[in-house]
Amino acid sequence: MSDLEFFKMNGWGNDFVLLEGPLDLSPDDVRSISDRRFGIGGDGVLVVSAGSPIRMEYWNADGSRAEMCGNGLRCVARLAVDLGMASEGAFDVNTPVGARRVEVDGDDIAVELGAVSVTGHEKIDGDRYHLIDVGNPHAVVEVDDLDAAPVSTVGPRIENHEHFPKGTNVEFVRFDADGVTMRVWERGVGETLACGTGMVAAAFVATKAAKMQSPVTVRVPGGAGTVEFRDGKSWLIVPVSYSFKGVWDRAKPGAGAQG
Amino acid sequence: MSDLEFFKMNGWGNDFVLLEGPLDLSPDDVRSISDRRFGIGGDGVLVVSAGSPIRMEYWNADGSRAEMCGNGLRCVARLAVDLGMASEGAFDVNTPVGARRVEVDGDDIAVELGAVSVTGHEKIDGDRYHLIDVGNPHAVVEVDDLDAAPVSTVGPRIENHEHFPKGTNVEFVRFDADGVTMRVWERGVGETLACGTGMVAAAFVATKAAKMQSPVTVRVPGGAGTVEFRDGKSWLIVPVSYSFKGVWDRAKPGAGAQG
Repeated sequence: MSDLEFFKMNGWGNDFVLLEGPLDLSPDDVRSISDRRFGIGGDGVLVVSAGSPIRMEYWNADGSRAEMCGNGLRCVARLAVDLGMASEGAFDVNTPVGARRVEVDGDDIAVELGAVSVTGHEKIDGDRYHLIDVGNPHAVVEVDDLDAAPVSTVGPRIENHEHFPKGTNVEFVRFDADGVTMRVWERGVGETLACGTGMVAAAFVATKAAKMQSPVTVRVPGGAGTVEFRDGKSWLIVPVSYSFKGVWDRAKPGAGAQG
Repeated sequence: MSDLEFFKMNGWGNDFVLLEGPLDLSPDDVRSISDRRFGIGGDGVLVVSAGSPIRMEYWNADGSRAEMCGNGLRCVARLAVDLGMASEGAFDVNTPVGARRVEVDGDDIAVELGAVSVTGHEKIDGDRYHLIDVGNPHAVVEVDDLDAAPVSTVGPRIENHEHFPKGTNVEFVRFDADGVTMRVWERGVGETLACGTGMVAAAFVATKAAKMQSPVTVRVPGGAGTVEFRDGKSWLIVPVSYSFKGVWDRAKPGAGAQG
C-alpha cells in the first residue's frame, strides 16, 4: 500500500497528479503529493475509479476538496480510457456535482458545458458588450488590437460595473479568418491564460456577430481549443497530455519529513 | 531510448531530476524535463554515470550548464550508492571542477568544502564582524534577536561596504546551547533559506568565539545541517531524500508540444 503508481498529466499546463481508485487520501497526503519541491507537484490530485459511470474525485493542492474542474475532468477521461475503464468516444464521468459527459478522441478531450444564451447587450464607455450566460456570466467585447487591449484596467471596471451586481467575466476578442483570439479577465481572479466558459462565450458571439460556423477555433494566451455547438449544447475540446508516470512512496512523503 | 527512468530528489527542497548516464541531453531536453507544469519539474537536472570516479553532470533548469552544486552533489552521491555504483562511506565524484569527496551515511550526505580561515575582524556601525574565507568571503555577526535581525537592510550595506571591494556574504548568527541558528544574506542574491558555505563560516566562528566543539549543528530557515572540521577541512552534512521515481517519455516532451 505504500508504493502508489501515479500519472502526471496536464491540460495547457493546468497540471494534476492522477491515481487509480478506490483510494483514501487525507488532506496531508494531498499536500505532500502536490508539493512541487518535496512531493510530485501539481495544481491538484485526481482519483479515478472504475464503475458505471466512472467516478472522479478531486482535491486542490492545499488539501481541500473541489467539486469540479474542467481540465481535471479531461485528464480523468483520457486516463480512464488508457486504464481500460472505458472505450474511446463518449461516456459519463460521475463527479461530486453529478454526471458529466465527455468524449475522448486521442489526446483531444471534449467536455460538455451545457446551454449558452444571449442575455442582452450593453454599451459601456462607448464599447458594445455581448452579455452571454454559460452557467456563469460573461461580457464579450470586440477589440482591434488584442495585444494592446486594456484588460487589466477595463476588465475590473466592467466586472464591478453597476450593470453586473454579481460581477461578470470579461472577454476581449478579435475575430480572425480562422477563428477567435481572446484574452480574458476572470471574475474574482484577474487576467488568466485560459477560461473554458469564456472560450464558449466568445465562440458563441463569433457564430452570431461574425457568422462563423461551429466548430470554432478559439485561441487564448495559454493555448488553443475548439468549441462546438450541437443540439443547443456547447462542447469545449482541449488537448491533454501525459507529462510522465511514476511511483510515489507513501511511507516517505517528502513534505512531511522535510517541511 | 525514448522512455527514460528518472529519480526526483531534493535536499531541503532544492530539487533535481536525476538520470543514469551516459546520456546526451540537449538544452531543450533539460528545459522540458525541468518545467514544473509540462515536464517533471525541478531546479535542475543531474546525470550520474558509473566509473572510477563516478561522474556527475549538472544543468540548470534553463538549460545552461552549471559547474557545481552542493545539494546536487549530495543527491548524486546517494543515488550512486542506490544504483550500486558505489558503497556507503566515502568516495570521490568527478565534477566539471574536479573530484569532490563525499560521504554517504543513509540519507545524511557529507560533502567536503575545503579549508576555512579567519581573514580578520572589522567593526562596522558598532557591530563586530568575523571575516571568514571558505573559498568565498563571509562576514559573520552575532545578534541577540535573530527574528528581528535587519538582514535586508544591513545585509546589502555590508555586502557593498568599502571594506569588501569584491562584496561578501553576510551571516547573522545566534549561538544556542546546542548549536548555531543563522540567517544569511548571499552576495548578489539577497536573503536565502540556506547557504552551505555560510553555514561552514558560522560554525567556524562558533568553534572560535563560542568555543563549541565540532561537529556543530547549524539551523537555517530552510532546515538544519551539521558542520564538521577534520584535519583542517570542513564537511557539511545535509540530508537528501527521494520524492519519487518515474518514467519520462522523451518522445513526448510536454513543454515543446504545449508551450
